[in-house]
Formats: sequence, structure tokens, C-alpha cells
Amino acid sequence: MAPSRYVGILALVAGCLLPSGVRALWPIPHTLETGTTALTVSPFFYFDVQVEGAPLDLYEAVSQAQFYLANDKLGRLVVGRGANDTTALVGANTLSTLTLSLMSGATAEPIASEAVKPLGTRSEEYTLTIPADGSAATLVANSTLGLYRGLTTFNQLFYYYGGVTYTLLAPIAITDTPAYPFRGFALDTARNYYPVSDILRTLDAMSWVKINTFHWHITDSQSFPLEVAQYPELAINGAYSPQEVYTPSDVQYIVQYAGARGIDVLLEVDTPGHTSIIAATYPDYVACFDETPWSTYANEPPAGQLRFALPEVVNFTASLLADIASTVPSSYFSTGGDELNVPCYTNDYPTQLQLNSTNTTLNDALNTFTLATHGALIAEGKTPVVWEEMVLDWNITLSNETIVMVWISSEDALAVAERGFRLVQAPSNYFYLDCGAGAWLGDDPTGNSWCDPFKTWSESYTFDPLANLTEAQYELVLGGEQCLWSEQSGPENLDPIVWPRAASSAEIFWSAQQPTGAPLNVTEALPRLQDLRFRMVQRGLKPIPLQPYWCAIRPDACDLTA
Amino acid sequence: MAPSRYVGILALVAGCLLPSGVRALWPIPHTLETGTTALTVSPFFYFDVQVEGAPLDLYEAVSQAQFYLANDKLGRLVVGRGANDTTALVGANTLSTLTLSLMSGATAEPIASEAVKPLGTRSEEYTLTIPADGSAATLVANSTLGLYRGLTTFNQLFYYYGGVTYTLLAPIAITDTPAYPFRGFALDTARNYYPVSDILRTLDAMSWVKINTFHWHITDSQSFPLEVAQYPELAINGAYSPQEVYTPSDVQYIVQYAGARGIDVLLEVDTPGHTSIIAATYPDYVACFDETPWSTYANEPPAGQLRFALPEVVNFTASLLADIASTVPSSYFSTGGDELNVPCYTNDYPTQLQLNSTNTTLNDALNTFTLATHGALIAEGKTPVVWEEMVLDWNITLSNETIVMVWISSEDALAVAERGFRLVQAPSNYFYLDCGAGAWLGDDPTGNSWCDPFKTWSESYTFDPLANLTEAQYELVLGGEQCLWSEQSGPENLDPIVWPRAASSAEIFWSAQQPTGAPLNVTEALPRLQDLRFRMVQRGLKPIPLQPYWCAIRPDACDLTA
Repeated sequence: MAPSRYVGILALVAGCLLPSGVRALWPIPHTLETGTTALTVSPFFYFDVQVEGAPLDLYEAVSQAQFYLANDKLGRLVVGRGANDTTALVGANTLSTLTLSLMSGATAEPIASEAVKPLGTRSEEYTLTIPADGSAATLVANSTLGLYRGLTTFNQLFYYYGGVTYTLLAPIAITDTPAYPFRGFALDTARNYYPVSDILRTLDAMSWVKINTFHWHITDSQSFPLEVAQYPELAINGAYSPQEVYTPSDVQYIVQYAGARGIDVLLEVDTPGHTSIIAATYPDYVACFDETPWSTYANEPPAGQLRFALPEVVNFTASLLADIASTVPSSYFSTGGDELNVPCYTNDYPTQLQLNSTNTTLNDALNTFTLATHGALIAEGKTPVVWEEMVLDWNITLSNETIVMVWISSEDALAVAERGFRLVQAPSNYFYLDCGAGAWLGDDPTGNSWCDPFKTWSESYTFDPLANLTEAQYELVLGGEQCLWSEQSGPENLDPIVWPRAASSAEIFWSAQQPTGAPLNVTEALPRLQDLRFRMVQRGLKPIPLQPYWCAIRPDACDLTA
Repeated sequence: MAPSRYVGILALVAGCLLPSGVRALWPIPHTLETGTTALTVSPFFYFDVQVEGAPLDLYEAVSQAQFYLANDKLGRLVVGRGANDTTALVGANTLSTLTLSLMSGATAEPIASEAVKPLGTRSEEYTLTIPADGSAATLVANSTLGLYRGLTTFNQLFYYYGGVTYTLLAPIAITDTPAYPFRGFALDTARNYYPVSDILRTLDAMSWVKINTFHWHITDSQSFPLEVAQYPELAINGAYSPQEVYTPSDVQYIVQYAGARGIDVLLEVDTPGHTSIIAATYPDYVACFDETPWSTYANEPPAGQLRFALPEVVNFTASLLADIASTVPSSYFSTGGDELNVPCYTNDYPTQLQLNSTNTTLNDALNTFTLATHGALIAEGKTPVVWEEMVLDWNITLSNETIVMVWISSEDALAVAERGFRLVQAPSNYFYLDCGAGAWLGDDPTGNSWCDPFKTWSESYTFDPLANLTEAQYELVLGGEQCLWSEQSGPENLDPIVWPRAASSAEIFWSAQQPTGAPLNVTEALPRLQDLRFRMVQRGLKPIPLQPYWCAIRPDACDLTA
């Protein structure tokens, strides 16, 4: 695969000398060939959907692509923003059509259906060809999902100046396919609540960089904003307010909105830790509830964890998780499992009574609990997802299919792989977007963020998904995700703290071909990421500026060694 | 002064037990007495302006206060957000009027005129009394500016629940006066541009915490967005785009808007460093323009500094600064003077030719340049303001009136004071809001922010304005400011990166009575700052969340040692 990838890199290197239209692509396609011919987009440009039985969400995607094509109006990030391109555009050929079609034998399912298929069975690849002579461009894929990815790429190919939408790099030929099947973004909506509109806007941005999983950490110890039909009191007593909830119809709308953008919604209901607020409804189910000092019983306030040794808690949790999981189409569901605090149970009378009377250990009880909760999910057709502690810190039986998320450190992937589990890379030392904002606990003026320092896009971008692993273990790496934990975040800072940084992992897991293609390079990437960022601004997002604008329009001039 | 300040602290300590309405005050007033009586605000409440010849901007301020009183609708930050207060409100007395008046002998000038008087001659003090029996509240001051400050306090006294605006702490008696005359916020609008609307919104927020100086770092090496009537090419060639400029009428509007909110606009046109972009118009006036490696010639790209040794550059700069200064009413103008790079001139032929032919040193030339530029400003009636290097790194003659801003380190205040200059505290190790966001230069994936770590509100809040100084030097400390440098900021993240953090210095310099009153305390302050933050949200600002909402409504529960 390496040689074909080099085609793309070489074209881009040339693009640093030429006026590069393709500088805007993010993630960089698997193969990319470009020419040097100017091509303008016709004011009468249209997308020609030659797909038999095309589903509604494909037409919606085309309509969205048409909107972006007309409204992005992104000037090239050079001094003058494209003013110098106008002479090249005089007499240029005009592109009037992009024809979308499926490969023969492929059937047209809704994008939303393709997006929730099991990992490894989704078809995201596509071929996009734009001739230089003005004849129709073509987009071909094996699925509507592949067509959706291709439309995303198509929208990134064009700049705008003085009323003209154009590329200077026709002909363009792209064949594209992701390096990894799982490319996620995780959002914690429990420490602080995000209105549905913020989530939808985030899903849009995710789709622009081909992220295909919204890992929704929807509940935690602080709040339970998820309305569950069978357990309505959990949100009534556990949401921050009656307005700060996700109703079943909110969830359905978000899932549908995500699916239409090629995104699977992976719900996480973190158990048995991170559940303090459940005590507001079921006080008997929660140990060490709001005990102080909280730091003895939890990593952050408030303390409180499910009494997983009690049979009624096992039944309740299995039922709760299955009920929630049954409402969403994803093949996956996360039961969490991080930061389980043992001292919480040491003096917990109901837990100790149960353990003593049944002559079992805390570990055995956790095993029973996990078998039951995971069993209930598997019965619903879901594959369980857990945080790394469930395999590294505890001795419990998990289905071989279980997916393990590595978060504490990138060093831990090896240990997970050695146990034979498939894994998702979400290491805090590369991918936690909340790091570096200082201490948030009160009375701690000299405290720093526990995962200091702030992870810049480029630090994240240097992450190697296969580091430390043996070649035989490579296939266990499903992909990765960047995460926003919300102790110090909310709708007020969502866009700038996430974007464009979350695009770093999106490119790593789309473009970094395993086992080892050409390594990604921060210097080559920065101008493209700037382009992505400015296109995001054009689309109404509020991504953080990466540099002074002076630097943004002078690629490489602000490199450390320039 | 300490005893009267203790009244306030004690009332607040009691307030942690009682339902505290006054928890919301920020900055905390000089003296504060509260009762335990509920008092509701009448739907027909009005502000009774008993001020002879009241200026228009006082009426505008009253109108704004009326708007906030009706629309803040801030629930108390406790579980239930005030639901438990409703019984106390049954049959409560109703407040119908706040009477505003000036002390006898005081004359009613516009707030905007009072706001630009020389430091030390402005009258910001006021007395606010709210009886418990429903009779008229009174606000008395020596000036319209004092009345404005009092209105700001009045608006922070009330909560809202279920259609009722109320306090539970009547009667309330406040006498208030600032500890320091200069309380600023500095914004760099040159690295990245901010639309006028962003500046206006920021001025509003500044006024809510009684910040009285907008230090506007309006130009820098990267861009020159300021349109100067006598030198139009500077912005034509130096602004990022024709849209990204501050026209003379923009500046007038901003100055007027600020003035009406009790805020003086201190313009900074940084010289002779930080001027690279002037070369786009006057290439002969700039040394080492865009030289590489930039790191030899500047602290950040692009390199380029005024050839201050050349007589024509001295004349140009003096004329430019005087022309700009003459358009604004402030008594102060900053000529910058930070980070002057010597190697820039070492091989600069015009500079060396001039120095050799006149047998002068670079230091002498800087002295001549500064005498001329400051002289021109003094002739315009302005007091010059400079960064600390102008007195610590160079041997130049400055007017005794010159104000020196300490920025490199809080340790440097002593050296400035030892030279006898009045100073403003803007130390990067406490007050730089941009710290902690990682490296922004390209090709530097492992680089951190130069002033790591991120300055939390509480770290900033522990700053002692008088640290290391002798008692005789205390009077030299005019106040201080937090600063946003915009390498990694722009309109997209302005609100969350500035607020509520910039309120920390606002309280230090309003409430920390010198020489040494009761020290400010982060644990006491946090619930009040949370209240301020949530009130800011109610007013449409986007301040960063400081903690999970669970913590915000449970004061002290998320303290480090809780």
C-alpha cells in the first residue's frame, strides 16, 4: 500500500510550490492524483444520482453537498486568498455534473443503515474522478456510505474567489478507503449538559472529517440526563433539570441525524462506578453515596457506585442497560467500567454482608455482574465495549468479542492486546481534549490538570496506533477517538475546545495505513488542517484559531525552524 | 479599613448557612451588611433618577439596569435553584424604587467623561442601601461614574424563581470604593482580528465586574487593523483584509460605548518592536523585515522592527502616535516597548550607517526615539505607558509620570518600583489568559505554551499586588489587568478563554484593600464567581464552565479537601 500512498504525498509536496487546491483535503485520501489545470464549477452544477432505489438520506446528503458547494466560499489560504488565481481561471473549463453511482451488484441501503453495520463490514471506500475537460465527474462506491464519504471529499476540493468556485488541480483522481474501521469522538454530556443542537452541530463537524462513531458518554455520577422509558425516575431525579434531559425522541433524532452522516452512535452508560446519581432514585443500590472525603471513594466528587454484589442491583443494571440498548441501532454498547473504587465497598454493609454470606470476593461479584449485564446486551444483539480497567485491573470473564478502550495511557494498549481483545485507542496522553485547563476542584489554586499539558492538534497527530504492538496484534486495533470530558466544558466552549483538534485522530485512523505506510507529518499536515479549520468557520462552527492569521495564509512561515 | 471589610466577610460566612443572596456579588464591596428578611422586586419597579442635569448616558445606564433586573432571571446556585425559597417569599415586602442621587455639591457629568479622567481623580465610590420594609432603596455617589458602579452592584443582588425577583438578605447596606484606580483587561486584536461586536460584548462583560480600562493592543507585527486618517496605507496594506479593520468611526463608537460603561480605552500602538507589517507600507522604515530564521530576530514570526535610529522614522512614529492619540479621550497612551530585538539591527545597514555617522549607540538612539514619541504624546496631553523592558533593559529617559506595565514576571514589579515608576501589574505568570494552550508554531508537536501552565481563575486570584514591595512603594501600584494575546485566539473562543477568568483581577484590584486588608480567599470566592458566571450566561455571554454543574449548585462540595 505504501507506494500508492506516496502518490498522494508527492502530489501534495508539489502542491506547496504550485497553487494547491488539494491542500484542503482532510483526511488525506488513500491515493490521490492531481493535475495542473484550472476548472471552475458551473453555476448550474448538479449532482446526478444514478443510483437505483436511492434512499432518502442519500438525496439529503446530495442536497447538503450542493449547499456546501454553493456556500462554503472558502478563499485559498495564501496572501490574497485567491486573487492571483483569477488569470488562471479565464477560459477555464467548467464542471457541470458529478455523477453518483454504485458499483454493479451493490444495493442501495440508507446511509444510516450502512453506518451501523458491524465494524469491518461497512463499506466506506469510494472512487472520485474529476476530468480536466469539463466532462462529468464521477463518484463510485460499493455503498451509499461510500458515496457519502466521497461527497465529503468532493466538497473539500474547491476554493472560491470573486464569485467563482474552482480548483487549479484538475484532473483529480482519488481512490479512498479508511485505514481503520473505528474513528470516533467521545463526548461527556453528564458532567455538564449539552443541548441537542450542540450535539447535532458536532455530528456535522465529525462527518466533515469522516469520523464514523459518536461515543456518547451520556450518564455519570453527576447527572443522569437520559430518559429511559422503563426507568423514568432516573432522569426525573438525576437530570440537572427537567430541561436538561435527552428524551427518547431526542435520542432517536440524534441517532438518525448521525446515521445520515455515516456516524454510528455508541452509547455508554458507565457502570458500576460513575453512578452516584442513581442513588437519587435507588438509594439502596448505591454504596458510599456522597461519602466524604470524596477523594477516598472516587476520583472526583460525588462518591457513589452501584452495589454490584447485590442480586437486585445486577438485575436492575442488566435490565436498564438492555432497555437502553434496545432503543438504538448500533451493534455496540459501552458499559464503561473505569475507575472502580474499592474502598467504597470496604465498609459498605450491604456489600460486605452479601460477599460474606455467599463466600465470594469483590472480584467474583464483579464477574457475576458483568456476565449478567453483558449477557443482557448480547441478548439484544450488542457487542459490549469497556474501558481498559475491566481487563487490566480485574479478573473477569468477557466475551472474546468485547472491545476494550485504552484511555489511561498509550502504554496500556500492549497489555490489552496481549489479552487478545480488540481495542480502541483513546489514550489520555494524546487524545484527551480537556487536558491542560488547570485544576477544577475548589480550593486548589496551584493545581494543574491531571493530564497536563494541553494536547495540541500536532501532539495528538503524532500518535502511532500500532506503537509497541507486534505485527500479529495490529489487527486488534480497530481505530481510535479523541474525547471531551466535561468537568470544565459545556455548550459555551464546545466548538473551540474540540475543533479542529479532534480532526487529528480522524486523519490518523483514516489515512495512516497499517502496518506502516508513509508516516503522517505535522509539517505537511498543518496547512491542510488550517484549510479545514477555515472551512469549518465558513460553515458556522467556532473552531479555535491555531495560529495568527498571518501564519495561516503563509504555510510553513511560522514553523519552529522557519 | 480592615474592620469594615470584615463586616462583609462575616456576612458572607453567615451566608453559607443562610440562603445567601449576596453570594452573587463580584467584586465584593468594601463594606457590606445584610439582614435575613425576604424582599421581592415589584413588577412595577422603577429607577428614580434624582440627579439634576443627568446626562444621557446615565439614563442609558438606568435603562440597562432595568433590563438586567427584568431579564437576568438567575436562579440561586443551590439544589432546586430557589424552589425552597418560595415559602419565605409569601407575604414578603416589595421593593418598588431605587432612588439615584449625587452627593450635594457634586455635578452631573457624563459617565463617559468621568471614566477618562486621570487615574486617582475618578470617583467610583457609592453607597447603596436597601431597606427591608419595602421603602425606597437609595444609591448615592459623588459622580455619575459612582452611580454606574452602584447600579452594577444593585443588579447582582437579586435572584429569580417562579416569576419572582427577590433577595432573602434585606436590609442591605453597602459602601463601596475601589482599592486600586486601574483595573484592566488587555486584548490583542492584531494577531487575530475581532469584529467590533465582539469588543462591545467584551466591554459589557468588563463593566459587570467594574473593570475600568480596556487596554487595546490594536496593532502588532502581524497586522495593522487600525485605520489612521493621516496614514491610510498602514491599514490598507497592513490589515488582514479590507473588512478586518477598525475605522475611525469604529474606534469612536467603541470609545463611547466603553465610556458609557465606565471604561477608559487605553490604546497601545506597540513600538519600536512588534511593527513588522509597517514594512508593507514603509519598507525603508523597518529593519530585518521577514528575515529568517525569524527566531534570531524576533520572539515570533514575522521579524521586523522600526529603524528607530533614523530621523525620518522618529518623525514618522511621533507623528503617527500623536495622530492616533489625538482621536481618543483617554489621558493615557501606550507606546509598548516590549521584546525589542537587538540582533535585528546588528547587520541592518541603514541603522549601522546612522549610528556610525552620528557616533551614537543603539541605546542612545532609542532614547532619542522615545523622547520624541513620548514628547509628541505629552504634547497631546497624554501620559505615556510602556512595558517593563523600557525601564529595566534600556537606559532611557522617561517622564516621571510614565506608567510601566509589568508582564514578564511578577518578580519584576520590585525593580520597576525601585526606579520610582508607577506600575500596572500584568504578570504573565498570573494574568496571561492565553497560557497553557500548547505550542502554536508549526513543526513543534511536543512544544508547550511558553507560559505554561494554564492560569486558572484561582491561580490568578492568589496574586498579591504588593508582594515584595516596601510600604513606601505600595502607592506606585496603580492596579492590574489580565491579558489575552491572540496567537491562538479569535472571535471563536473569545468568551470562554476570557470569562469568567478575567474577573479574578477585577476583584483583586477592586476589593483587596491596601496595604493589607483581609486577604482574598479562593474558597470563599468560588461560589460567588460561579454566580457571576451563571449570570453572564443569562446575559448571553459564553463563559467557560468552571466545574460540573453538580458542583456549581453545591458550594464547597467539590473542594479539593471536601
